[in-house]
Amino acid sequence: MKPTATLLFSCPDRQGLVAKVANFIYANGGNIVHADHHTDFNAGLFLTRIEWQIEGFNLPRELIAPAFGAISQPLGGTYQIRFSDTIPRMAIWVSRQNHCLLDLIWRQQAREFSAEIPLIISNHPDLEPIAKQFGIDYYYLPITKDNKEAQQQRQLELLKEYRIDLVILAKYMQIISPEFIDTFPSHNIINIHHSFLPAFVGANPYHKAYERGVKIIGATGHYVTSELDAGPIIEQDVVRVTHRDEVDDLIRKGKDLERIVLARAVRHHLQNQVLVYGNKTVVFD
Amino acid sequence: MKPTATLLFSCPDRQGLVAKVANFIYANGGNIVHADHHTDFNAGLFLTRIEWQIEGFNLPRELIAPAFGAISQPLGGTYQIRFSDTIPRMAIWVSRQNHCLLDLIWRQQAREFSAEIPLIISNHPDLEPIAKQFGIDYYYLPITKDNKEAQQQRQLELLKEYRIDLVILAKYMQIISPEFIDTFPSHNIINIHHSFLPAFVGANPYHKAYERGVKIIGATGHYVTSELDAGPIIEQDVVRVTHRDEVDDLIRKGKDLERIVLARAVRHHLQNQVLVYGNKTVVFD
Amino acid sequence: MKPTATLLFSCPDRQGLVAKVANFIYANGGNIVHADHHTDFNAGLFLTRIEWQIEGFNLPRELIAPAFGAISQPLGGTYQIRFSDTIPRMAIWVSRQNHCLLDLIWRQQAREFSAEIPLIISNHPDLEPIAKQFGIDYYYLPITKDNKEAQQQRQLELLKEYRIDLVILAKYMQIISPEFIDTFPSHNIINIHHSFLPAFVGANPYHKAYERGVKIIGATGHYVTSELDAGPIIEQDVVRVTHRDEVDDLIRKGKDLERIVLARAVRHHLQNQVLVYGNKTVVFD
Amino acid sequence: MKPTATLLFSCPDRQGLVAKVANFIYANGGNIVHADHHTDFNAGLFLTRIEWQIEGFNLPRELIAPAFGAISQPLGGTYQIRFSDTIPRMAIWVSRQNHCLLDLIWRQQAREFSAEIPLIISNHPDLEPIAKQFGIDYYYLPITKDNKEAQQQRQLELLKEYRIDLVILAKYMQIISPEFIDTFPSHNIINIHHSFLPAFVGANPYHKAYERGVKIIGATGHYVTSELDAGPIIEQDVVRVTHRDEVDDLIRKGKDLERIVLARAVRHHLQNQVLVYGNKTVVFD
Repeated sequence: MKPTATLLFSCPDRQGLVAKVANFIYANGGNIVHADHHTDFNAGLFLTRIEWQIEGFNLPRELIAPAFGAISQPLGGTYQIRFSDTIPRMAIWVSRQNHCLLDLIWRQQAREFSAEIPLIISNHPDLEPIAKQFGIDYYYLPITKDNKEAQQQRQLELLKEYRIDLVILAKYMQIISPEFIDTFPSHNIINIHHSFLPAFVGANPYHKAYERGVKIIGATGHYVTSELDAGPIIEQDVVRVTHRDEVDDLIRKGKDLERIVLARAVRHHLQNQVLVYGNKTVVFD
Repeated sequence: MKPTATLLFSCPDRQGLVAKVANFIYANGGNIVHADHHTDFNAGLFLTRIEWQIEGFNLPRELIAPAFGAISQPLGGTYQIRFSDTIPRMAIWVSRQNHCLLDLIWRQQAREFSAEIPLIISNHPDLEPIAKQFGIDYYYLPITKDNKEAQQQRQLELLKEYRIDLVILAKYMQIISPEFIDTFPSHNIINIHHSFLPAFVGANPYHKAYERGVKIIGATGHYVTSELDAGPIIEQDVVRVTHRDEVDDLIRKGKDLERIVLARAVRHHLQNQVLVYGNKTVVFD
Repeated sequence: MKPTATLLFSCPDRQGLVAKVANFIYANGGNIVHADHHTDFNAGLFLTRIEWQIEGFNLPRELIAPAFGAISQPLGGTYQIRFSDTIPRMAIWVSRQNHCLLDLIWRQQAREFSAEIPLIISNHPDLEPIAKQFGIDYYYLPITKDNKEAQQQRQLELLKEYRIDLVILAKYMQIISPEFIDTFPSHNIINIHHSFLPAFVGANPYHKAYERGVKIIGATGHYVTSELDAGPIIEQDVVRVTHRDEVDDLIRKGKDLERIVLARAVRHHLQNQVLVYGNKTVVFD
Repeated sequence: MKPTATLLFSCPDRQGLVAKVANFIYANGGNIVHADHHTDFNAGLFLTRIEWQIEGFNLPRELIAPAFGAISQPLGGTYQIRFSDTIPRMAIWVSRQNHCLLDLIWRQQAREFSAEIPLIISNHPDLEPIAKQFGIDYYYLPITKDNKEAQQQRQLELLKEYRIDLVILAKYMQIISPEFIDTFPSHNIINIHHSFLPAFVGANPYHKAYERGVKIIGATGHYVTSELDAGPIIEQDVVRVTHRDEVDDLIRKGKDLERIVLARAVRHHLQNQVLVYGNKTVVFD
């Protein structure tokens, strides 16, 4: 795969936007490999994702963003430019369960993810051997009522020190404070919640699902915002359960869902396929 | 298909229950066609469904219930006996949307349902032509704040007059009062709710789903209890949606879900496959 | 919804195609409501679907096709222009089963389909009452080994007489001859096959699925080509079955699949979302 | 969980079978934890699975099989007795892909599987480091046209030497010879095939699926028989694909399917939930 640039752009809808964006690429000699557009008529918003080969593009990389800015600014738009050979750095936050962590590492090694994983943070020491095995730095930062603020400060420092672009809460099982979320660049923290949101927000969703007697359970990959389990949803999936499934069975079946839904959400993000607006996502897959 | 009897039985779990129930059938010369059991270890409850051919069974129909009662009583059990050739009578309650009504009638005519449909009740006159077409009596009982109690009385009289066994709320879009629910035999009112419960309880679930930006929508067939949309779930299913789906698309896609989920729930009930305990169901399919 | 024009266009891939197409719309004052592109790198093919409002478009309708032709021709492309207020005329071909026919008519009446249904053709007289009920002309053309060719001639005349754009084989259960397929405009005959193609091609797929002991059954909506059940697939879906499901249960469960999969395929076609190339489809939904 | 015994039994259908089996357990003081029955009316066959606690059962373990044999023999039945604390020994056969292997090992360690994994056999050396990491013996037995028979002999010896009960072909990608299959106890070799069987039997199913333009891909976990990819199916599942998915995407999406479908099939087997008859399975889950 040759390196590509990806433009994610949104602005108030008006005539000629597809042409404007396509012409920007074409006029500079770009070869588009993917282009997808969406208009949310309720929101009056145009959203687009265009990916083109850098090779042969007439603008040097550092000039692409300012050049497109000159187009976006009068349209009242917002945009990002990303390069496929600029590899994002992910931190994975875990608690005691290893299935999502192992799965993310496996996908990174299998090149399903274009990302580096230099850092694991946990409130428990249990998964340190996995970090060791794969040569990833592991920080055990236990959380108590009293140290939460200080540990959070430490977490932010680590993210900075390791130049982390994306935080994955891979069953971290702790609530991230609004201050933390405000500090870290927005829509760069992805959580896997083990229910079909908005059903069963908060703790123990499998126990609640069992109590409610649902016939299907789900998992949700979403960006973290200051409201618990209420951020923009990237991906969801479900699996059927029956009266024979006890809570332990829901947990077991749910683990397979969690791995896959989290992986899809992370991959969409890493492929620069996700545009957030309001509390929603457009996933250009 | 030769006529069968079906026993639905539950009691506190103890040793020998499968043998006790199977021996009751065998000792009376019954030929079992289906037998399924479940133990809910949390609830300490044994639940079973046994279906056998009536032909050749040594007990006359009217003596089966009392005879099994003698077994059930010392076990602290509850049970029902149903005969496949005793055709239940369903009333369908509708509002303005015709898709569930037409679907239920079609399935009844296609013999997917073993039931009669002598009665349709609606708070709108719109669907009366369908009733006429299929020779079903239609009562237009508009509901206002002032007449709700009186209309409810009228509804109960109609159910009695038409000897209705099962009420299907096929997008009736009105809340049934607790008094009504207490009066009609319990777990004989089935509702289709157009969301994946417990997500989006109450009105306008598709609008709420759209607002929330979910990636999957669902429908739930459940028994109606006095708490809104909180009764025992019989069946659920889901369908994937994307950012391209507006509220109208969710409604359109949801209609297919509603028809199928409601139909499955009704069929499970009519096949005597559903055992309710606590706020849950066992569906022996 | 204001009337729109839709362009479906494909040509060998090269630089600047998105811009070319978007500029054509923009230069003529068009307001794009949907635009989606795809590049099949294996086939070296660019495919696009663009939909824009006719109101305010500077070209009169009859000049759009020739004007775009001047762009397409040097690119070696093929294209179609369709208008949302030009309502296609569908003929539905049936045998004895009514579920797909009723479902298609219901969707047309519910405005899920933008199409007229002036004609039903069947090799059995059974479904004539449905045609009568909805005021649709019904032709009973029984097929035998001896009259097949003559009846086929009659079918073609009827399609011409009724100015039919789209033929839906809604469980017609007869093989359409290659001559017929060659005569009728290509990719305008849609069939529902009651299996997950390419599994269980030909007759009795549910019996074959039962014999094979599959755990999931499917249905496939596809364009008809001269090779049996081998045409371009538009839509597929599946449903889970168990050892408890006998052939009759597969047939019953399959009917729900057939209705939904056929409806989705037909809707994709009527919304001008389907582009066929080779033996494949791109579905821009 | 207290240890249990599980009886899998089938015989020609006749009256009183549920009672006979249940009485056998009850008369010996057994406490049933699961009981499920099925009658295949086409095959005229009764099939049952009963699981009960060993503690308090009056028959010593070694007498259970002969005692039940006395019941089974006059009924013309076949049966197996298995104990939950007799841990089966699995050999995993792999080629170069590691995802199924890692997943199986993870599930064994997470106690989703009650099994030991003492042996990995491969026709490639690639995955030996994984074996090392988990302390599993790894045999690299490359297969060529010339040595196939000899290697097969070696494989059989290894299975014997390691006292293997169950062979898992975890993407082994080689055809097992009928002689091998005849030698190893039947229905104790499980394969994962990367298609929705019977579609795309044999090599390169993802390439074939891509060529055919299917909208859904699948995976199948099945027992290996002498006919390629034609053995009794234990589990299948599917995932949706679109025109945007190239062969590499099908392979990537398929890996998630393969892991999950294989895991479910293996777990069903290890939980003694699978009864094979003819070329079909009953899965009592």
